[in-house]
Amino acid sequence: MDDTADTADTADTKSGTESSPQAAGISRRRLIGTAGATGVALGAVGAGAGYAAASSNSPEQQATLTSVGTDEVMFHGKHQPGITTAMQARGHLVAFDLAAGAGRKEAAALLRRWSATAERLMAGEPSASDDTDVARDAGPSSLTVTFGFGHSFFSRTGLEKQRPAALDPLPDFYSDHLDKARSNGDLWVQIGANDPLVAFHALRAIQKDTGGAAKLRWQMNGFNRSPGATAHPMTVRNLMGQVDGTGNPKPADADFNKRIFVPGSGSGSDSGSAQSPAWMGGGSYAVVRRIRMLLDDWEKLSTAAQEHVIGRKKSSGAPLTGGKETTEPDLEKTDANGDLVIPLNAHARITRPDQNGGSALLRRPFSYHDGYDEDGAPDAGLLFICWQADPLRGFVPVQRKLDRGDALSKFIRHEASGLFAVPGGAEKGGYVGQALLEG
Amino acid sequence: MDDTADTADTADTKSGTESSPQAAGISRRRLIGTAGATGVALGAVGAGAGYAAASSNSPEQQATLTSVGTDEVMFHGKHQPGITTAMQARGHLVAFDLAAGAGRKEAAALLRRWSATAERLMAGEPSASDDTDVARDAGPSSLTVTFGFGHSFFSRTGLEKQRPAALDPLPDFYSDHLDKARSNGDLWVQIGANDPLVAFHALRAIQKDTGGAAKLRWQMNGFNRSPGATAHPMTVRNLMGQVDGTGNPKPADADFNKRIFVPGSGSGSDSGSAQSPAWMGGGSYAVVRRIRMLLDDWEKLSTAAQEHVIGRKKSSGAPLTGGKETTEPDLEKTDANGDLVIPLNAHARITRPDQNGGSALLRRPFSYHDGYDEDGAPDAGLLFICWQADPLRGFVPVQRKLDRGDALSKFIRHEASGLFAVPGGAEKGGYVGQALLEG
Repeated sequence: MDDTADTADTADTKSGTESSPQAAGISRRRLIGTAGATGVALGAVGAGAGYAAASSNSPEQQATLTSVGTDEVMFHGKHQPGITTAMQARGHLVAFDLAAGAGRKEAAALLRRWSATAERLMAGEPSASDDTDVARDAGPSSLTVTFGFGHSFFSRTGLEKQRPAALDPLPDFYSDHLDKARSNGDLWVQIGANDPLVAFHALRAIQKDTGGAAKLRWQMNGFNRSPGATAHPMTVRNLMGQVDGTGNPKPADADFNKRIFVPGSGSGSDSGSAQSPAWMGGGSYAVVRRIRMLLDDWEKLSTAAQEHVIGRKKSSGAPLTGGKETTEPDLEKTDANGDLVIPLNAHARITRPDQNGGSALLRRPFSYHDGYDEDGAPDAGLLFICWQADPLRGFVPVQRKLDRGDALSKFIRHEASGLFAVPGGAEKGGYVGQALLEG
Repeated sequence: MDDTADTADTADTKSGTESSPQAAGISRRRLIGTAGATGVALGAVGAGAGYAAASSNSPEQQATLTSVGTDEVMFHGKHQPGITTAMQARGHLVAFDLAAGAGRKEAAALLRRWSATAERLMAGEPSASDDTDVARDAGPSSLTVTFGFGHSFFSRTGLEKQRPAALDPLPDFYSDHLDKARSNGDLWVQIGANDPLVAFHALRAIQKDTGGAAKLRWQMNGFNRSPGATAHPMTVRNLMGQVDGTGNPKPADADFNKRIFVPGSGSGSDSGSAQSPAWMGGGSYAVVRRIRMLLDDWEKLSTAAQEHVIGRKKSSGAPLTGGKETTEPDLEKTDANGDLVIPLNAHARITRPDQNGGSALLRRPFSYHDGYDEDGAPDAGLLFICWQADPLRGFVPVQRKLDRGDALSKFIRHEASGLFAVPGGAEKGGYVGQALLEG
């Protein structure tokens, strides 16, 4: 297509600095150039055809474009972007249903349009026609666009035989309060960026690309810390004030890829499995849950009571049994009264991988805040997104345990749910889902 | 109170770099220290008691805290923060009504609590008790908290005689579609920060401070570009893709203070006027309008048609009569057909200060996006906030003109409105509104 992605197989961040050691630990990432003086960072933007590079501003004006703007994530690669990419400050989740009469052919054309748009926008270029200009003047800002297929997609396109068993509906959980209108959907798109207008621009472009082929089903907005706002990049905090994501598998772990990604390349030459057919090679499954936090209740607890619920120190994320955030909790330790220091129903105990048959998932959430409801309670919480090679060994067993006995459950409410098959990344000249739609 | 604000009279940004030349042009701002190596920037954080400085993280972790996090705006000063402060990436607007039975005394106590919380949080410190920890690990992130009084506040507190005539209700406009439940209110708080969690943390702290004295009336969320994402710091773009705020008065203008701020210091020693009593010295009036953009209609227009509506080039913000963004438009210029190049109903013509008796206001908006409505149209647009010494010479005459003949009006809808008296800044040991409430 163009020359912006000639290192796609080995790199997915093209310029600027990494904001997370976790992301930096991913071997397939490579930094091309380092943002020093910001003028140099500007020069490091790849294609040269992007909004920012094409700007006619004076050098003094350009001097304010930092790595926040210039960082670029590669669209092409073995995996789609937005899975192991460092968390972004702004996110949009959107689901579409195919329109009446639209089938496999229309879906293939849509995924081809979407992939082309994602490639352009992630490089900081305007969309191919009638760009809204909302992202003009900004750099790529670590934009990622990630595409997935829901269970219902396959029957609507006559592709039932290609539907992964891993997409079978999630079991009902006791604590679910799900709004079906905001759950699932034929198609799912995750957009993330470190600039809110760049993210919104992508959302509108993706929506416009649907033409008559698909209609919006639901849409949610989220956020995380701004790059540079915190001195604590290892993990993030959620709106309960908790350190979130401590138990995440690390990209340096030997079995990281096996846990998170489906084996194979998606080229169709692999045999696949009942859980995941060959077209899912290099892909992953996303479980999306809109988890409302009952903050008025939570904030009434003392910090000590909150720590008892979670099993970790709120300030540092360290286990109540001592150490720092990354210290292993001592699950057997008792206090002077003989009580377990980390209670049996503590959230951190239940979600421990070694308490769940070694299952693992990669959490990559956004917080959300949609104002206040009619009772004056905040409509806020977590757009929980987790990634795994197999939901039946990732999300499901953990949620089953949480559903039965998590001390945190009375302070949260799962209000929407989605499960999506996210294929591997597109090759140059190809598009996401091609192995399925043309297989 | 403490030693964090000893330069309050002359500075309101304490450390780090300025992201906007406009803000840098404000003479009362002064940079204390410059963010070079980020470790140095961390050292430049003022009080030393803040979350970030108190962090036990390793130096490697601290190295990612940049000026986005360390920039600190002063709470104390002649004017409240959040008026001439550089625009922030995240904003919350919230209005409260005094609870039944709460009067002047309770309002004074609330403003004292609010001021103490704002001072602490803006310095990057936790709130005085039961902090939620949501901002922990982050720097001040340019947090500002700004307080205002609505028309109804004065009768509820027996202070009718102190009510400025400038707070008389705005006239009805032909194009208004106002939701009263999301308009006005006794008390208004504007929160802005360059980190979304820092802003949310402040919102919850402010809400908690109300105790039983006030109840939430409405709340809105907004955003702007992230610092460093754009090479074009002079102005911002809105969700229509337009450069927004070109006509803003510049702090370097000789009459800037006169246009934006009420004369006097707020100490009560000034005589005041019918429009603005002495307690408003150093204050300003905020007009807040939730302006929905009908983006589906707008985006159907060609860029040329959009430029005809606005009267400016979309790419650069330059007038259609040529030049760059800051070039004066040639309002008499005609094209080969004898038609005005900038049409009579072009938005930029109608809002020109010299077309409105020299009136002026300082626009300082946030964009908003609250998802999609039941028809699939985006609930998105502008949280328009403008500042002026007198709304009858600022917002009102401009909006009257726009109401009659603005080509943009068919693409926008004013859905909520507020008018608030925002007193001058608090002195050390004092609180916002003290001259009114103890006057």
